[in-house]
Amino acid sequence: MKKFHFADRLHEAIEKKNSRVCVGLDPRLEKIPKAIRDKHFENEKNPFKAVAESIIEFNKALIDAITDVVPVVKPQIAFYEPYGPEGIRAFYETVNYAKEKGLITIADIKREDIGSTAEAYAKAYLGKIEVNGEEFPGCDADSVTIGPYLGWDSVKPFVTEGAKNGKGVFVLVKTSNVSSADLQDLKMEDQRSVYEIMGQYVDSWGADEVGESGYSMTGAVVGATFPDQLADLRALMPQSIFLVPGYGAQGGTAEDVKGAFDENGLGAIVNSSRGIIFAWEKSDTFTEQDFADAARHAAQEMTEAIQKVL
Amino acid sequence: MKKFHFADRLHEAIEKKNSRVCVGLDPRLEKIPKAIRDKHFENEKNPFKAVAESIIEFNKALIDAITDVVPVVKPQIAFYEPYGPEGIRAFYETVNYAKEKGLITIADIKREDIGSTAEAYAKAYLGKIEVNGEEFPGCDADSVTIGPYLGWDSVKPFVTEGAKNGKGVFVLVKTSNVSSADLQDLKMEDQRSVYEIMGQYVDSWGADEVGESGYSMTGAVVGATFPDQLADLRALMPQSIFLVPGYGAQGGTAEDVKGAFDENGLGAIVNSSRGIIFAWEKSDTFTEQDFADAARHAAQEMTEAIQKVL
Repeated sequence: MKKFHFADRLHEAIEKKNSRVCVGLDPRLEKIPKAIRDKHFENEKNPFKAVAESIIEFNKALIDAITDVVPVVKPQIAFYEPYGPEGIRAFYETVNYAKEKGLITIADIKREDIGSTAEAYAKAYLGKIEVNGEEFPGCDADSVTIGPYLGWDSVKPFVTEGAKNGKGVFVLVKTSNVSSADLQDLKMEDQRSVYEIMGQYVDSWGADEVGESGYSMTGAVVGATFPDQLADLRALMPQSIFLVPGYGAQGGTAEDVKGAFDENGLGAIVNSSRGIIFAWEKSDTFTEQDFADAARHAAQEMTEAIQKVL
Repeated sequence: MKKFHFADRLHEAIEKKNSRVCVGLDPRLEKIPKAIRDKHFENEKNPFKAVAESIIEFNKALIDAITDVVPVVKPQIAFYEPYGPEGIRAFYETVNYAKEKGLITIADIKREDIGSTAEAYAKAYLGKIEVNGEEFPGCDADSVTIGPYLGWDSVKPFVTEGAKNGKGVFVLVKTSNVSSADLQDLKMEDQRSVYEIMGQYVDSWGADEVGESGYSMTGAVVGATFPDQLADLRALMPQSIFLVPGYGAQGGTAEDVKGAFDENGLGAIVNSSRGIIFAWEKSDTFTEQDFADAARHAAQEMTEAIQKVL
């Protein structure tokens, strides 16, 4: 049963690949190499289907190139969902292909709703879908991101479904955007900020589901762009794995994310999307057709940059 | 241009139908009448496609039955999304059919993400999708629900896209579930609660987009289950239309939602889902095959119950 626990699976993958990098699969259509787009738009009249096929080809090439150097990928569903049913198909295929290739997947969906509704989302992304007494796979990702505004009864269905299936949940705590201060930095009567309170909630929400690694299957999203808060939260949330967005294109550096890790250099993964999947754009060495090699190279560089500060 | 503004369109529909009721289209498969399910499962091997067809037939019958007695419907995407691409197709068809029949639609998606990502969602649900320089319709609902945890820069893309297209946005402020207290009821240094602060934010976020009715296109989700907070927020947010869930099955009564309305009985719509679309289950008059008539009757009763307290 040990390896079945999400936190243990994640740490095993981190140690095996010797990398704490998560690659964000955020395929902006206009940035997908032209050769891929042209091929699919020539053969396909339905524009959203052509987009979906372009995304799938792009993602599969990226996954093939990075699977032995990083442990985790995080497709952001907002870059698939606009293309309707075809976009969702591309999202599911991406998750499935990444899993087949041995990567741990985070479906970056940031869903949140009241209990019975959250349960429907939890089953869709972390469990099975029941139809007339039979169970069918849904998206079947290894983990999801969710929002915390509705409190515990909206989070619980994800924790329950995840714990049952060896899967994980990352709850938004301190996000990487500037306006995260609007709500998350507000100070309470007792001088704690909202993000600190949410951090303590999240750590306690996962307390019943701690694996061999000492970490629970309920983690937190904490942005690289606020290094001080990151370190504060690490101390406050000893059992929670951090998913750290905001590295690279959003401004976070290796030094900035240092505080996300525990004394053994574990307990966190750092995400970069644009900086890796579109690395060829800013490279003198790689051309557009080498996009996958460029991504692999960028993922290795990021891996090393983070190792150095630990 | 007047009628192009979301708040004006909504108030026109409220006055035309003389109803402040929003019908939640939350089609739980096991509760869809057996005759509909049987028909689609007999003809279709793909279970998710059979589900989608069942949902579409169920929803269309409901929409036909209620379109002249209520102004608004709110499909909750969590009850469609588990069925993958087929589920999304059913969601889009539901939104489109409701619009064709003259109903205002709220896509209950509760999305939230950082700016550039939120923009992708905003275009998907309120705008157009660009593919190689051409624009195509996405879901094209009249309005959406969104989460507020990430602050203004995550809300702004929805406000911008909505304002451009005569559409609306409902931001979660005080939700109807018990655990909404976890975060939303926390008290700040200055004794305001988080939901009050968020309410003031939302009212100010919409301040540049106020229509003829005096209301902005940026509204708020405020639960029927907390009548005191509802009345407090009404006073605090004079320009924000309230979308009030939690009526009926969740426990809210007509008396409870009274505080959501302004002195003219405007500025709010009250949602019921199960209590209307599955009304036949609790009825002595209607049978399963009369589900649409039962829904119409329940919507009329709810309309009258709310009129009475205004």
